[in-house]
Amino acid sequence: MALHFDPAEFSARRARLDAALDAAGLDGLLMFAQESMYWLTGYDTFGFCFFQCLYVDTAGTTALLTRSADLRQAQHTSNIDDIRIWRDAAGATPAGQLKDMLSSLGTAGKRLGIEYESYGLTAANGRAVDAALDGFCTLEDASGLVTRLRAVKSPAELAYVRKAAELGDRAYEAALSQIGAGADEGDILAAMQGAIFAGGGDYPANEFIIGSGRDALLCRYKAGRRQLDPRDQITLEWAGVYRHYHAALMRTVCIGEATPRHLELHAAAAEALHEVEATIAPGRSAGDVYQAHARVMDKHGVEDHRLAACGYSLGAKFTPSWMDWPMFYDGNPWVLEPGMVMFAHMIIMDSTTGTAMCLGRTSLVTETGSEVLSRASLDLEVK
Amino acid sequence: MALHFDPAEFSARRARLDAALDAAGLDGLLMFAQESMYWLTGYDTFGFCFFQCLYVDTAGTTALLTRSADLRQAQHTSNIDDIRIWRDAAGATPAGQLKDMLSSLGTAGKRLGIEYESYGLTAANGRAVDAALDGFCTLEDASGLVTRLRAVKSPAELAYVRKAAELGDRAYEAALSQIGAGADEGDILAAMQGAIFAGGGDYPANEFIIGSGRDALLCRYKAGRRQLDPRDQITLEWAGVYRHYHAALMRTVCIGEATPRHLELHAAAAEALHEVEATIAPGRSAGDVYQAHARVMDKHGVEDHRLAACGYSLGAKFTPSWMDWPMFYDGNPWVLEPGMVMFAHMIIMDSTTGTAMCLGRTSLVTETGSEVLSRASLDLEVK
Repeated sequence: MALHFDPAEFSARRARLDAALDAAGLDGLLMFAQESMYWLTGYDTFGFCFFQCLYVDTAGTTALLTRSADLRQAQHTSNIDDIRIWRDAAGATPAGQLKDMLSSLGTAGKRLGIEYESYGLTAANGRAVDAALDGFCTLEDASGLVTRLRAVKSPAELAYVRKAAELGDRAYEAALSQIGAGADEGDILAAMQGAIFAGGGDYPANEFIIGSGRDALLCRYKAGRRQLDPRDQITLEWAGVYRHYHAALMRTVCIGEATPRHLELHAAAAEALHEVEATIAPGRSAGDVYQAHARVMDKHGVEDHRLAACGYSLGAKFTPSWMDWPMFYDGNPWVLEPGMVMFAHMIIMDSTTGTAMCLGRTSLVTETGSEVLSRASLDLEVK
Repeated sequence: MALHFDPAEFSARRARLDAALDAAGLDGLLMFAQESMYWLTGYDTFGFCFFQCLYVDTAGTTALLTRSADLRQAQHTSNIDDIRIWRDAAGATPAGQLKDMLSSLGTAGKRLGIEYESYGLTAANGRAVDAALDGFCTLEDASGLVTRLRAVKSPAELAYVRKAAELGDRAYEAALSQIGAGADEGDILAAMQGAIFAGGGDYPANEFIIGSGRDALLCRYKAGRRQLDPRDQITLEWAGVYRHYHAALMRTVCIGEATPRHLELHAAAAEALHEVEATIAPGRSAGDVYQAHARVMDKHGVEDHRLAACGYSLGAKFTPSWMDWPMFYDGNPWVLEPGMVMFAHMIIMDSTTGTAMCLGRTSLVTETGSEVLSRASLDLEVK
């Protein structure tokens, strides 16, 4: 058994879920998001790449339908007792087997929530489930239900988040030890990811972002490594990850020298980050945080910043993305609460001069405001 | 521009796609699978975690709808010229913006394929797309269309596959240099992944599988590292990855000694792998390969092997999984062709004795049979 939380923690989560289902007028929930399953039961797998469903209800039922490759995985990593298997074969109909499972559990005619917004339920499988359960029970989109519960972390979860933050700082130190003229991006990535694995940490839910030269203006991972020029810039976005909990960081580092534009944009990014962090507090909305960012960006004449969010929640996430809800975007009414873990990233990509400047780190929402979880300096590094 | 293939290669792929669309009676295709977009245009991102669609048609149109974070990503990594952005904000309706884009491209009343079976189109977004396009055009599930084209690799792709195979071998050497009594799984993982990054390779589309002791019987990644006992076993499944092309390997390594049961199961796994590799040839079906595996497993009295596939296609895949189509499962009629890259894994998990024994490697289907792409020995390693 590799449960990372004690039984009392899982019981408390189940009680919160039952209350949320009751409040939503639902008898049970068809979980397809791996994040939901991990949070509720500890079940830890990338098996959600195939059809898989965890059914739970307020009467205490917990039953998993998955492939055989995940039978032992569920036994070793979760507290789920009732595990059922669908078999790979020509003509396999897992959605039909889901109906059989639900039928055996007495759910005919019930009102069930379903996580339609989940990488674990593709549109094709969603259509198959809808067809299989049509007339058997009532389905209602409840994609945000567990997400809301997960957003507020318990003390046991925060211990893992703090460990993740420590690994994130170590990864930055490892990066800085490599960065310099002639350094290969592949070696930098190896050092960063190596620091996290050697520290007992996990793969990130998305690839670390690494780009230099013109590609320092990108904010996604891509294939193809490059060596740093004598005068160069490199943008990194990464996360310490422990027990799948993420603590993200973002930096642009200069090689050789910082141009005047780098210095100017760094000042803007640092000012924006401080404004944002001052706004991350209980009772403020995610939209309020976005506005704090937008005001500083407008003041500094940064272009195009209004198109995108300036941060988001972090937690125990699975691929393809560590970005969690809520996001700091325009008008988002989601109100911050103590125990939420929020990543704020100031991303300035100046196409006119080809200058990148990114600055980001993760904060914990406290009872009175927020606490930065990283000890890494915000100073502009020149290597 | 970071295109990993030359324009002639992309043109040839487009011609294959056009022919397949014509054959299917489709005017165009709504792509949601990142694999499809990367194959057709080079577009390389994990931005498919949010709503994103690449529309292509047989009249030569190519247009991408994505978030602002992916605008430069598409410009730097793909040959797509027409890139449109939907904005993060309360009330954002990207499916509606997709309809606007299609409308501006003159697709009203057309018959379009759609990739419903894709992690880039969750059930929730699939329902939104269906609703937005209802009455505007005709949609037909074409999830397998590009997948079929991708399964057969070009010479340019095979050059990357061979590079991936080389990186996979290096990762195994790195693992063997670490494995031994008292070694930490985290250090082993760091060494393996480090060898691949340092060699210019990429993140795998799913986490490497690493488990020892009782967890050597798992075939999925999970959080939580462990140190090896003086007498122990460790199961590893990993892939060299280059330009997102995968070449996977799988091994169980013994620490201290191999038990008689390890030796017995290793002999069975090796026999099965050789039978399978002898069956991987043009004209044989994926189901034929499965049967070769099943016959050897039955002969050795291995339990439960009939529940799962014994391998699958590999290619340029994105998270959450590197497993591609076709899979070697019972009855799969998909016929192998030259240029296909197939991973065969013999997974024996003996719960009675707690013994794991896994053996797997990747082969290229040639004109006359198949070629193993790894130089790593199949011998049982004892460290």
